[in-house]
Amino acid sequence: MISVILLGAGNVASHLYKGFSASKNVTVSQWYNRSLDSIISFKNETEVTDDLSQLKEADIYILAVSDDAISNLSNLLPFEDRFIVHTSGTGSMYDLQKKNKRGVFYPLQSFSKGAKIEFQKVPFCIEVEDKSKMQMLKNLATALGSQFFKVTTEQRKTLHVAAVFINNFTNQMYRIAHEISDKENIEFDLLKPLIMETANKVQEMSPYIAQTGPAKRNDKKTLKKHLKLIDDEDHQEIYKLITKSIQKTHGIKYRFDIKRKKTNG
Amino acid sequence: MISVILLGAGNVASHLYKGFSASKNVTVSQWYNRSLDSIISFKNETEVTDDLSQLKEADIYILAVSDDAISNLSNLLPFEDRFIVHTSGTGSMYDLQKKNKRGVFYPLQSFSKGAKIEFQKVPFCIEVEDKSKMQMLKNLATALGSQFFKVTTEQRKTLHVAAVFINNFTNQMYRIAHEISDKENIEFDLLKPLIMETANKVQEMSPYIAQTGPAKRNDKKTLKKHLKLIDDEDHQEIYKLITKSIQKTHGIKYRFDIKRKKTNG
Repeated sequence: MISVILLGAGNVASHLYKGFSASKNVTVSQWYNRSLDSIISFKNETEVTDDLSQLKEADIYILAVSDDAISNLSNLLPFEDRFIVHTSGTGSMYDLQKKNKRGVFYPLQSFSKGAKIEFQKVPFCIEVEDKSKMQMLKNLATALGSQFFKVTTEQRKTLHVAAVFINNFTNQMYRIAHEISDKENIEFDLLKPLIMETANKVQEMSPYIAQTGPAKRNDKKTLKKHLKLIDDEDHQEIYKLITKSIQKTHGIKYRFDIKRKKTNG
Repeated sequence: MISVILLGAGNVASHLYKGFSASKNVTVSQWYNRSLDSIISFKNETEVTDDLSQLKEADIYILAVSDDAISNLSNLLPFEDRFIVHTSGTGSMYDLQKKNKRGVFYPLQSFSKGAKIEFQKVPFCIEVEDKSKMQMLKNLATALGSQFFKVTTEQRKTLHVAAVFINNFTNQMYRIAHEISDKENIEFDLLKPLIMETANKVQEMSPYIAQTGPAKRNDKKTLKKHLKLIDDEDHQEIYKLITKSIQKTHGIKYRFDIKRKKTNG
């Protein structure tokens, strides 16, 4: 049985708490947050605290806090030679206080408050300073039903950037489509099958092969019609830039005539 | 039984052919293409022709050809007062020759050569000039197992723009993530669960609510780190622009200092 102490109460911490609680091989023996409010409701399930001096001994301390808070929080930990990890995609392992053994346990997935997480679909990217600790991170991931991948710091940081494109930026494409369709009183529901199909397609073929549409076909008439139809200037700019990007990927030379404003920059 | 004559042999035509062939209530009585090569292999299943003067009578003629070809092809049709439709998202119904009864049968989905299509997941946007023809388009969609939506021309054109954001632009986000991860020898497979989760999430919550990440959190440190990590200038520009867009959506005032080059434009 691995004993875990969780620190933090954001989305990642909350989902990890649920995941570990459902696992046979892990126990969350204590949950710390600087404010008790967010975790007090779990007081009958685990020990909750807002006092770092009350932290018990455990196999691993998981700092599931915002990137900015990692370094500060780890400096306040009143112990040494224990195993501490953070869950950040971009933070360095060395942001953690060096009196302890350090590692990273980064779930490559998007956690939202309302949404359920199936940990089978969450790959964990793991990193350790002391190799003897690697197995524990593997066991933790396995206990959640997750896959794990040993990565370098550079790979993890790169994955985080890639994840921003795949998750945040893709979601913004959905949002813009939502805004555009709203203006014509079109139900967003109509577009949901296309969202699923777009995601499904690249499970089996590369995004390069999967690409279709007016940019890839270099269908200039449609490209121009679309630009005329889009009212919002920011959306126009995005339309032009992503079209340009698709055309570069597919070796097409046509470019919109993107006029730039004169600036002193 | 609705008799259909298909014109064209691209992705949409081919998938429609398969869909109709599998349906009990529709028969494709003839398939026209200007070159027989692409359809000759179906000659034992249906009549194939490259000669417009040989077109038979049918309940409906579906012009599943590129936008640019619709008007020309329809002008060459050697009959009148019959029901002709195109399958384009952007083309006007009035691109069709006016001697015939006109309509639009636009599948709001992405069709690729290699990928299978489940027509239950393809909403058809339908439009007719003569209301008495509406029922036939509804029946055609139903025969495929598809949903149908009566739309105005303006709505259909807007949907096509929205579909470009949701399909082509999203796919390009995947592609960029692929390029970025390739550089660090990271398997793209690692990112596939995130692609699915991102798509799944907005089936039940709005993209606005589903948004997470450094842009929305206005996590300036991470935004700057990411920009440093991205080598490709085009990818940097996209990172900045979509971040700006997310921040505008979520009412955040921080903006990257996007320097523009001096131009004469």
